[in-house]
Amino acid sequence: MNREMSETLVRTGPGTPMGNLMRRYWVPILHGYELAEPDGPQLRVQILGERLLAFRDTRGRIGLIDEFCSHRGASLYFGRNEECGIRCSYHGLKFDVDGNCIDVPSAPQVAPKMGIKAYPCIERGGVVWAYMGPPDKRPAPPEVEWCLLPAEQVFVSRRLQECNYLQAMEGGIDTSHVSFVHRYEVDADPMHKGSAANRYIKADGNVVFDIEQTPFGLTMFGRRNGDPGTYYWRITQWLFPWFTLIPPFGEHPLGGHVWVPIDDHNCWAWSINFRPDRALSAQERGAMEQGMGIHAPCEPGGFRPLANRDNDYLIDRKAQRERRAYSGVFGFAMQDASLQESMGPIQNHEAEKLLPTDKGIVMARRMLYDAVLNLQNGVEPPALDASAQRVRAAGVLLDRARKPADWANEHLANRLDVPVYSI
Amino acid sequence: MNREMSETLVRTGPGTPMGNLMRRYWVPILHGYELAEPDGPQLRVQILGERLLAFRDTRGRIGLIDEFCSHRGASLYFGRNEECGIRCSYHGLKFDVDGNCIDVPSAPQVAPKMGIKAYPCIERGGVVWAYMGPPDKRPAPPEVEWCLLPAEQVFVSRRLQECNYLQAMEGGIDTSHVSFVHRYEVDADPMHKGSAANRYIKADGNVVFDIEQTPFGLTMFGRRNGDPGTYYWRITQWLFPWFTLIPPFGEHPLGGHVWVPIDDHNCWAWSINFRPDRALSAQERGAMEQGMGIHAPCEPGGFRPLANRDNDYLIDRKAQRERRAYSGVFGFAMQDASLQESMGPIQNHEAEKLLPTDKGIVMARRMLYDAVLNLQNGVEPPALDASAQRVRAAGVLLDRARKPADWANEHLANRLDVPVYSI
Amino acid sequence: MNREMSETLVRTGPGTPMGNLMRRYWVPILHGYELAEPDGPQLRVQILGERLLAFRDTRGRIGLIDEFCSHRGASLYFGRNEECGIRCSYHGLKFDVDGNCIDVPSAPQVAPKMGIKAYPCIERGGVVWAYMGPPDKRPAPPEVEWCLLPAEQVFVSRRLQECNYLQAMEGGIDTSHVSFVHRYEVDADPMHKGSAANRYIKADGNVVFDIEQTPFGLTMFGRRNGDPGTYYWRITQWLFPWFTLIPPFGEHPLGGHVWVPIDDHNCWAWSINFRPDRALSAQERGAMEQGMGIHAPCEPGGFRPLANRDNDYLIDRKAQRERRAYSGVFGFAMQDASLQESMGPIQNHEAEKLLPTDKGIVMARRMLYDAVLNLQNGVEPPALDASAQRVRAAGVLLDRARKPADWANEHLANRLDVPVYSI
Repeated sequence: MNREMSETLVRTGPGTPMGNLMRRYWVPILHGYELAEPDGPQLRVQILGERLLAFRDTRGRIGLIDEFCSHRGASLYFGRNEECGIRCSYHGLKFDVDGNCIDVPSAPQVAPKMGIKAYPCIERGGVVWAYMGPPDKRPAPPEVEWCLLPAEQVFVSRRLQECNYLQAMEGGIDTSHVSFVHRYEVDADPMHKGSAANRYIKADGNVVFDIEQTPFGLTMFGRRNGDPGTYYWRITQWLFPWFTLIPPFGEHPLGGHVWVPIDDHNCWAWSINFRPDRALSAQERGAMEQGMGIHAPCEPGGFRPLANRDNDYLIDRKAQRERRAYSGVFGFAMQDASLQESMGPIQNHEAEKLLPTDKGIVMARRMLYDAVLNLQNGVEPPALDASAQRVRAAGVLLDRARKPADWANEHLANRLDVPVYSI
Repeated sequence: MNREMSETLVRTGPGTPMGNLMRRYWVPILHGYELAEPDGPQLRVQILGERLLAFRDTRGRIGLIDEFCSHRGASLYFGRNEECGIRCSYHGLKFDVDGNCIDVPSAPQVAPKMGIKAYPCIERGGVVWAYMGPPDKRPAPPEVEWCLLPAEQVFVSRRLQECNYLQAMEGGIDTSHVSFVHRYEVDADPMHKGSAANRYIKADGNVVFDIEQTPFGLTMFGRRNGDPGTYYWRITQWLFPWFTLIPPFGEHPLGGHVWVPIDDHNCWAWSINFRPDRALSAQERGAMEQGMGIHAPCEPGGFRPLANRDNDYLIDRKAQRERRAYSGVFGFAMQDASLQESMGPIQNHEAEKLLPTDKGIVMARRMLYDAVLNLQNGVEPPALDASAQRVRAAGVLLDRARKPADWANEHLANRLDVPVYSI
Repeated sequence: MNREMSETLVRTGPGTPMGNLMRRYWVPILHGYELAEPDGPQLRVQILGERLLAFRDTRGRIGLIDEFCSHRGASLYFGRNEECGIRCSYHGLKFDVDGNCIDVPSAPQVAPKMGIKAYPCIERGGVVWAYMGPPDKRPAPPEVEWCLLPAEQVFVSRRLQECNYLQAMEGGIDTSHVSFVHRYEVDADPMHKGSAANRYIKADGNVVFDIEQTPFGLTMFGRRNGDPGTYYWRITQWLFPWFTLIPPFGEHPLGGHVWVPIDDHNCWAWSINFRPDRALSAQERGAMEQGMGIHAPCEPGGFRPLANRDNDYLIDRKAQRERRAYSGVFGFAMQDASLQESMGPIQNHEAEKLLPTDKGIVMARRMLYDAVLNLQNGVEPPALDASAQRVRAAGVLLDRARKPADWANEHLANRLDVPVYSI
């Protein structure tokens, strides 16, 4: 990837081409529980390089507004959230969820000129989503499967990842690394162990990809040797512009991620587990809350993982030697994050030498880049129709002659009323 | 304020236009007690972007010299303060309070060429002041009232504020914010509570300013409704280039500040309480030492507030909800500092939208800017005559028909032998 | 030193003129004990601005390779050191000690194209040395005396110094500072106390230098008054490009340093004590392990001194006043480092005013600069012939009429089979 294309994809601040593209989609910003109460504490939010303030007002509406007062630039984090708005503590200017200035105590007549930026928010799947693009271009709400399920069937966490979103997301697209860094984790982690999939993944490190480009993103068919006469296919999706879907391991829940830029050197890794067909068990939910599976134990009350670059991700060379942790780092999430953060805040894409297993990320980069160029030329972005998100990942053992795309078209395409396919 | 004017006002390093202006006045640099003993430990001092070393020599004279040895650039902080000079620990070069090199052990004959910069210092009001401008332009010592009083009538503290001096000082000029962020503090703090002023301030958030430009700065007349038929006037001053004066609350002491750039991202907030007419009581002094009133509890032995941006100023959302702390932050000093620091190291002045209550800061900016331009054209700065500093802040209840400027001319102008006016 | 010459000497990253010169010599990178076991933990190494990875493979060979995988740029620090190579944890690429890619699991045929940079390493004197220059220009291994002695006669430590290598090394060349910052240390430290040298050094702070330029660097003859009718000469060497040698104090061991750039703001201070004629005693070795003499107590398991700039080198003003520590800092190493680091990450050489005692550093700078210019013009660097390193420092009391260079030619030149000269 040359410098120009790399710079285009990794910069997402206000006014950047990629930033403009991302602002055409709903953006996950917070857990709903972080803004639980009307008139509760407001929160600072940084997303796509913008410093914002989120709050729930007296009537229960969520506001996502500029963090700073229009008057002198003081942070509204120190303001008062009361009576349907945030009042700046410095001189009492008050703003509602739409960014309107509804009071200037010393000069009421100028209030209409003192408004600040505000983005509409919705709640879905326990997540607060914001729309940060042109008002007249607001798309339908997201319909990724886990957004549409009852709360008891879904678990959502998020963690800080200290690198550009692109190299993080590419780890979610390229599943060929599972056979390496996650090699010993699949058997040890309660969210993955015990499945036949583990056996195939460990036995065949040389996954072969067949990738289908769709209007909504990519469907990746990863082939490993299965039982005699069969292939084990892992069917995963990348959905425009930042969703990835993960098939279940045996009876364990399905999974997914959203990779959202905080700024160009940091992103949120949202991690989701869900069962379309039943509530999560107390045992499953307990393990997730402890940071097992694709989740990660974080600092109390915060979202930075306990294992992070300041402590070398708690690398354990003894566990590495004893083949309990392939890289010495424990946990799926931090195994990925340690490697992706080690590439630097923004990977030097010009220096990389891509391999055939990188086909998925090459295609995703190209699709994102084309969408950016198209948008600059007035062509609307892909996948704004949320129904394109009504797909599901699957793991399946097929006869060697069987084409997995045919199987997927028959069993998974564009509907969520199918059984869970997993082995 | 456009970018050019903002850049002019906020940059104060050596050779900058604003730096040149400030260097024409005496600069507070340390508490006298920090350099108490002859031959005691020297101190590093950063002021106006210059890295300096302060020490008291064997004969009790104070030196403020370049921190670094002229020879190889080693810090004289590691030198020896003895026998009327600082001796560099590296090769033994020795410098006196005037920056003269008085010994080069390996080559005595070159000593006269090895001198370093030095600034003259005086002590007034418990504070060490330096003059950092052209030697032939040295003005008379400062005569702000608290400088001239016996030690028992004055209390002085200083704290680090982690932002540009201008946005800090503007909080001292614009007192309209008292009705907001300090709203619950005026009744709770022992240095403010119990005065009639509190009642007026809380009842009338819409202060109206009448501002008079004087040769020495600004006199601001802030009007709030008083008792029937009267107005409650708070008369405050901004004195060139960085002094602000605060009227007493009831029987409490008068107050004041000096806002001094450390570098362009940090400043010293000097905070002073004093009584012209009597010694401070043990109770008053005790409260001040604990960081009450306009002072702030700081790290032991240091000057960084315990409540600072690293801990979100110990914000207490419960206290905010219960109307014990308007912004959730406690203490006048940190209520201001939290808001001013939240604007960023240097406020983006181009983005601000000023209101009528900002009239004082607009006038002060303009006066500073004019003085900078004038100085560049050879016109001497204003207020070099220290007698211009012989003014006093006051709070007074006047008949609605009475002009406060007339009252001030009669009772406060240019003399310090008047009673304390306060309510 | 003008800006151009200073910039030339202090910049040592890949492709810089000085970097090119240094890469023509063997570079100390690690203690041998840090890479003790075959297949033990790999280590991150930063040297001359390059981020590298050191490991010992299954067969005991040492590899020093690029820290980052050629594929996607993940750090090989998280890889697996096993079966004669480092395997990247992300996608399983494997590299041997020569940087060859010896496995790409998903695409074995491309392995030959995926190689990374690698530098040959050797072990001498308990130290791992790397050669980072053009392969066809590799010189003979280093022959400084301590490299050639049995392990029981040598003690080697290294510590991080947080400034450019040049200002650190210059402290090793210019020994005139011993009479100042180390004044009280020479009597107190167990590695120095009790020698006649201490007495001469303290009595005569005005050392006079006679410096001889040699093909391998400099021999410095430092003259102080000795007993009646004699001079006390300290004969020290600077050897191209970064070695300095220290004469013994009385019966104590000889010493030396190597000053190696980590990047332009940090360097390794390697510190060596040795006896050519006997094993170090348990008492001597114990004192060195505790950080006495020219060594420094460091953070457990690390190489950053416990006394460092974050804690003002544990400066003790009381000890300074009581003449137990000249600058208030304890220990030879940190006395030097505190002063050298206080000059800033890169000393402002344009502002310095050199003295006659700086003759040695002036000559060394000039020799380095000339060697850089010569190399750019195709002239080979000096002192590539390691036999030039077969010299020794000495302390000697000579009749005032005696020329120390004559004595040195007779007793020290180019051979290591002479007695230890010390007083």
